[in-house]
Amino acid sequence: MLYVIGLGLSDEKDITVKGLEAVKKCERVYLEAYTSILMVEKEKLEEFYGRPVITATRETVELEADDILRDAETKDIAFLVVGDPLGATTHTDLLLRADARGVPTQTIHNASIMTALGSTGLQMYNFGQAISLPFYTASWTPDSWYDRLEENLRFGMHTLVLLDIKVREQSEENMARGRLVYEPPRFMNPFQAFKQMLLTETKRRNPEVDSDDEDAEAVLAAAADAPRFLDPERTLAMSLSRIGTPTQRIIAGTLAELEALDEEEFGAPLHSVVVVGKRIHPLELEFAGRWCVGGEQGKWWSVAKDVYGVERETFDY
Amino acid sequence: MLYVIGLGLSDEKDITVKGLEAVKKCERVYLEAYTSILMVEKEKLEEFYGRPVITATRETVELEADDILRDAETKDIAFLVVGDPLGATTHTDLLLRADARGVPTQTIHNASIMTALGSTGLQMYNFGQAISLPFYTASWTPDSWYDRLEENLRFGMHTLVLLDIKVREQSEENMARGRLVYEPPRFMNPFQAFKQMLLTETKRRNPEVDSDDEDAEAVLAAAADAPRFLDPERTLAMSLSRIGTPTQRIIAGTLAELEALDEEEFGAPLHSVVVVGKRIHPLELEFAGRWCVGGEQGKWWSVAKDVYGVERETFDY
Repeated sequence: MLYVIGLGLSDEKDITVKGLEAVKKCERVYLEAYTSILMVEKEKLEEFYGRPVITATRETVELEADDILRDAETKDIAFLVVGDPLGATTHTDLLLRADARGVPTQTIHNASIMTALGSTGLQMYNFGQAISLPFYTASWTPDSWYDRLEENLRFGMHTLVLLDIKVREQSEENMARGRLVYEPPRFMNPFQAFKQMLLTETKRRNPEVDSDDEDAEAVLAAAADAPRFLDPERTLAMSLSRIGTPTQRIIAGTLAELEALDEEEFGAPLHSVVVVGKRIHPLELEFAGRWCVGGEQGKWWSVAKDVYGVERETFDY
Repeated sequence: MLYVIGLGLSDEKDITVKGLEAVKKCERVYLEAYTSILMVEKEKLEEFYGRPVITATRETVELEADDILRDAETKDIAFLVVGDPLGATTHTDLLLRADARGVPTQTIHNASIMTALGSTGLQMYNFGQAISLPFYTASWTPDSWYDRLEENLRFGMHTLVLLDIKVREQSEENMARGRLVYEPPRFMNPFQAFKQMLLTETKRRNPEVDSDDEDAEAVLAAAADAPRFLDPERTLAMSLSRIGTPTQRIIAGTLAELEALDEEEFGAPLHSVVVVGKRIHPLELEFAGRWCVGGEQGKWWSVAKDVYGVERETFDY
């Protein structure tokens, strides 16, 4: 039996009782470690499970599925995934391979950022498709995520933005020399995410214009009138840091307010970002507003009223 | 401290280790029992926790929050919610009330249908906003869900349809007489959901036309040409039954194929439904196709190709 077991969001005790019972009886235990990380060392997991844990890297899972599935027809194997095993990143490929070999599988679900983002006070119902924001470089600023975001925003849906992590990155030199040496892991900070998102907004609005061109002014004028989906002063967003852990931190504000914060304000990884859609309910506004930049004097309330058209209501508790 | 603890999807062992440790030390333990149900009796939970469990009904949570929060400044109180506590139905109201009273809170997340639907093989990323389908009556067929569904389908997103449950329903007579007597619980079956969805599609396309009206023919002709978001023969969907439990069952097919199944095919509650969007990847198609009505001869593959424009690929395992 192949058990595909979610570990939840924070530490070793976020596994379910059912998941823990399964791990404890498995012959081999793999930990998928390239799409997310747990806030705890592997050694702590091993101690808690009473089992050695094999780190499965991208190469292992995609290329060495045979190793993972070896003897799984007769023995119990555990494949551990941070969050829900079929949530943000699905492991359907491994399940299909198991199926093709006649290996029975059982999926043990757990919390994922996809539902835990309810901690923001925003209703899961009001979220559209989730998007992933990759690390930009000087020459590579892939922005297909923007089209998905625009689709959500057109209909007033909120958007969860998953931020890139690089856990087994090779330097160009090491890659060229075929050395399997990896750089230290990198996790995108909301500070960088907001900067990248506003960069793409600017680029999309101002396609390169030759300043000698007589149409340049007209092009720029048209760009200025184009719908601005990410407006620094008029778009509300939130940062979600370490959701589900004891140091969880949420900050709300306009994109400009959030982008102006120090990187340190957001603290250690993991982070996500939410872009708030216009179909926001006063209760969502109130709940999230408790964490807004500048408190009662912040722009959260005035932008909600003037741009989103949602009046602050008084809730009597 | 108020602990708001998710119970996951199936039985008493789907609680996390962290959640279980919290419950065991709480003075009072409430179980929220109006938005979803666990597949296990309350007595089994009590035995597992070693604690009596108080059922919190809608009236309790909304009107008797004071009772729940009594002494929570100094004592530990648990509020248990099926799924993720802030997932499909948020309990933000209770958290805000706790906040207003200076009661510290801790949310312990868990799996929810919102992420467990990854079991279908469809990518969470490709889902738009979720919708809720209420029980229709002869005179009440509320269809605002259709607009949300249409927004998702326009951009090719998948849609999770949560099906109505009635766990503390009063008959009209009992309500009129003020008797707090409740009907047996009702859970919508996918069979009924597909029928209701197609009924709304038909109604939206054929607004009542006076047959004596000379424009009637033109109106009907226009309706026939209108985009048909839910087409019995051309829309793919899936039923999700008892997800996360040992008897989990998923069925895929066209709306017509699914609607033609016997109610018993889907088995016991709880159920949800998914409407498949056009932006479906061949791997999603393959994974979900393992459960399609009619197998290789079913319409799943031909509709995917002809209507969705997705060719079946061969995956080499």
